[in-house]
Formats: sequence, C-alpha cells, structure tokens
Amino acid sequence: MPEAPSTLAEPAQGLGPALAAAGALARSEIAAAIGAPEEAVGAAMLYATEGGKGLRAFLVVESAGLFGIAPARAARPAAAIECIHAYSLVHDDLPCMDDDDLRRGQPTVHRRWDEATAVLAGDALQALAFGLLARSDCPPQAVVALTLSLAEAAGLPGMVGGQALDIAAETAAAPLSLAQVEALQARKTGALLTWSAAAGARMAGADPAPLLAYGAALGRAFQIADDLLDVEGDAAEVGKAVGKDAAAGKATFVSLLGVAGARIRAAELVETACDALSCYGDRAEALRAAARFTIARRT
Amino acid sequence: MPEAPSTLAEPAQGLGPALAAAGALARSEIAAAIGAPEEAVGAAMLYATEGGKGLRAFLVVESAGLFGIAPARAARPAAAIECIHAYSLVHDDLPCMDDDDLRRGQPTVHRRWDEATAVLAGDALQALAFGLLARSDCPPQAVVALTLSLAEAAGLPGMVGGQALDIAAETAAAPLSLAQVEALQARKTGALLTWSAAAGARMAGADPAPLLAYGAALGRAFQIADDLLDVEGDAAEVGKAVGKDAAAGKATFVSLLGVAGARIRAAELVETACDALSCYGDRAEALRAAARFTIARRT
Repeated sequence: MPEAPSTLAEPAQGLGPALAAAGALARSEIAAAIGAPEEAVGAAMLYATEGGKGLRAFLVVESAGLFGIAPARAARPAAAIECIHAYSLVHDDLPCMDDDDLRRGQPTVHRRWDEATAVLAGDALQALAFGLLARSDCPPQAVVALTLSLAEAAGLPGMVGGQALDIAAETAAAPLSLAQVEALQARKTGALLTWSAAAGARMAGADPAPLLAYGAALGRAFQIADDLLDVEGDAAEVGKAVGKDAAAGKATFVSLLGVAGARIRAAELVETACDALSCYGDRAEALRAAARFTIARRT
Repeated sequence: MPEAPSTLAEPAQGLGPALAAAGALARSEIAAAIGAPEEAVGAAMLYATEGGKGLRAFLVVESAGLFGIAPARAARPAAAIECIHAYSLVHDDLPCMDDDDLRRGQPTVHRRWDEATAVLAGDALQALAFGLLARSDCPPQAVVALTLSLAEAAGLPGMVGGQALDIAAETAAAPLSLAQVEALQARKTGALLTWSAAAGARMAGADPAPLLAYGAALGRAFQIADDLLDVEGDAAEVGKAVGKDAAAGKATFVSLLGVAGARIRAAELVETACDALSCYGDRAEALRAAARFTIARRT
C-alpha cells in the first residue's frame, strides 16, 4: 500500500498535462455535440466550457481507468460533468446571483453576450450534459446510475441547494457555523467533485463507496483551498475577483479556522482522500496526485 | 378506422378531468421527489409546477396507455416533462427574458420570491426531470432512450434553441417568414409536446414514428392556438398577459396567416395529428381529443 502524502508543500508536478488532456477530451466531445453553432447561445456554450482546469473531467477519466476503461470511453461522462460545471458558473456569475464580470480571466457570458443568452446557454449546457451521459459507452443500467446520481449531485439535493444556502447566508443575521459551512459546501462544490470521482465505478458497475469517500474528502479540501485563494490569491492569476468573501463578511473555512488552521484541515482531508483509495493500490496514484493538487493549485 | 374530426368547433368535452388527473399524477411525483422543502428554492419548484394544464403529462400517460402501460408506471416520465415545462416558464418569465409578472394567474416565481431563486428553481427543476426519468418504471435501455430524446427536446436542438431564436427575432430588422416561425416554434413549443406524445412508445421499446408525427402536428396546432389566444384571449382567463405579440410587432401565425387563415391551418393540423394515430385505432381516441383540445382551449 503506498504511503499517504505527508506534506502540503508537495508540488503537483506532472498533473498539469493530465488535467489539460482530460479537459481537452471533454471539450472535444462538447464541441462535437454542439456542432457549428448558428446561434449566440451555441457559441456561448462553447465559450463557457473553455479555460477550465479540467479537474472534474480528469477525475472521471482516472476513476474509469481504475476499472480498465480507456479515456476515450470515459469522454462523454467527462464532458457531461464539465457541462454541468460550466453551466453552474454561467448562472452563478449572473447579476442576480454573484454578479461577476470576470471568469477564468475572461468576461463572463452575460458580459460577453447578455443575460438572456447566459440563462439560455446555462440551461442548454445542463440538457447537453444529460444527453452526453445518455450516449456514454457503457451498459444502459450504468447510464441510468450515472444519470440518477448526476441529477441529484447537480440539483436541489446537491449543487443548486448549496448555492441557494450560500445566497441565503449572505443576508442571514449571523454568520454560518463550521458545520453549516461544511454542509453547504458539500452540496455546492463537493457533490459534483464526488460524482466525478465515482463515475468510473458507476460506468463499470462496481461499488462506488471508496471513490465516494475519496471525492467527499477531496471536495472539502478543494473548497478550503478556494477560501484560501480568496484571501491570499492574486486576481490576475486566479482569473476571477478575490477578497470577495471577507468584504461580504461571509463565514468561510478561513474565517472560521484561520489561515493556518484551514491549511492543516485541508492537509488532513488530502490524507483522508488518499487513504480512501488504498484498495486500488498504485493504480490510483494519479487520483492521489489530484487530491494534493487541489490544495497546491494557484487558480 | 375512426373518422378524423372534421370541425374546429368540436368541443373538448370530457378532456378536462383527464388532463387534471394526469397533471395531479405528475405533481404528486414531483412533490414526493422534492419532499418538505427547507429552502425557498424547493418551495419555488413546487409553486412553479402548480396550476398548469397538465397537457404534457396527459400525453405521456395516454401514449403509454397505447402500449398497455398503466398511468402509475408513466407517472415519472409525466412528472419529468412537467418539470422541464415548468422550468422553461420560470426562466422565460425572468426580467432579462420575457419579463412577465403573471403566469397561470399567479405572480411569476421571480416576483413571488426573487430572480436568484427563479434561476435556481428552474435549474433544479431541469435536474429533477432527468432524475425522475432515471427512476422510471421501464427497462434501462428505455430510460436511456427517454433521456437522450428529452435532452435534445429540451436543449439547444429543441426548446432552448427555439427560445433563443424567438428573442433574436424581437430585435431583427425584418419580421420572420412563415417558414422561420414554423421552424422556431417546432423547437420552442413543439419539441416538448412531441417528446411527451412519443414517451409511451419509448417506454415500451416500440417504434415512436406515428406518435412523433402526431406530436409534431399537435405542437404546431397548439402554437397557432397560442397566437390566436394572444389576439383574442382575455388576460384574466388566459392567466398571463395577452396582446404582447402585436405590441412587439412580432411575426406570429396570426400576423402571417390572418385570424381566419390561422384557424384553418390549425384545423388542418389537428386532422393531420389524428390521422397519424390511425394505426392505434380506437385506443388513441383520448389523444385525438387532446389534439382537438389544443385549438378549443381558452387558456
């Protein structure tokens, strides 16, 4: 059994190309599905899926690899989760939500086009995600399992519910407790990352439990890193506005644990994530690297 | 083989209770899936699915009945299409889209709550639709067929693309031609109605072609009736603002064909729809009544 990584400082060397490759694989599926867009909405859909880290696609491809499923066969589930992620960013950036002008260093969709196009592009990306899943190269019962779990991860029990809690927290009388922030983030950010990590097992009809445990810990580490970037990051490097949480008086892992405490918690979660993969042995090394990457990343 | 209906004036007697029953069946599935909503978004989702005609749920239930599938087994696909329809209305009503205050005689979701809740409720309703489909009581390959076809009907190739064309038409230099209006409406309104009509065949693994032909004709008749209601309807009875198309200078079936011409075209389409069902004999009588209902309805 490989050792769990022991330091936060361990660089995420070598992961960059693998993330980029998974992201490109997903985007090529998305581009093929959209075709040559005649309408602004189609162009906005493609635009919204560009420039991401490709982390969710990578998790799908790597978890599929644990079960002998080649990257090409995992391309559509990988594309599906990138569509959901992209749509959520487009809608979250809207003036009535987070009101952001900048995303991944580029104008947000409603700034580049207009609000109606942003609403519709997000809506169509969500539909496309389920269409891509339905055309996945795996048995029908695996497609159904992927679809049901994605609907829950993306919907009210998951991402949308978490975003709603996050908006409600902004106008709440008191800041959220640590338990409340954890519950909120498990839905808002964690649900999609967990789905991605478990996708390979679901494609293969295998038990997703170890990957669900890995994904849950990775998701929590990822969000702590996000909160740290909001405090310590540089807007130009991060590709979006920073310092927004503190300005809004929002409870975050950093406001609740302090910078040092948040770093320690993130490191513990990365160890938990890596430990959850022990049953897969060395084959899961790339997923362990991804867990370390979530807290070493600069964007 | 039953005679095709020959007059427009034929009342849709007896259809009301069947529509209401199908709508209630769908809503009970939606309510069970959402549970007791802790958040405004969940309450908004339920609110958005109330008060509709239930036409799409009815088409799912009736088309399933053609293949011996009982209403209870068709409840989840029926609920799924009502979720998609409801989400599309919530998003279409947003200030950046059609900017409507009234829907089904009640305040629109963004008026009752706020814009962020409306965006999120719509998003979660779309996810819920695919989750309900995934839990449909039919073989996995049928679920996959339902999912793929719904993703296309709801997404860029269908409803969202049609809505985008409709918005673009509002600022176009020249009004759309008849062919353009037909192409737009086939996507915006027709795609979901056609999916609903074909759902039973897809659940049963049967050829959906006759029901696709029926649905396409019914969808076109439905939209012509909508355009007629916008000219002739009463806002209190219709449950939403009327006279908006003419005020906006929009090309509609009525502006292109005239009131009398539009009525004749709608009647022809109802006959086409009914003829497409001939292979099902008398068992399709309720679907024929639904086609007649689309142009006799007052809301």
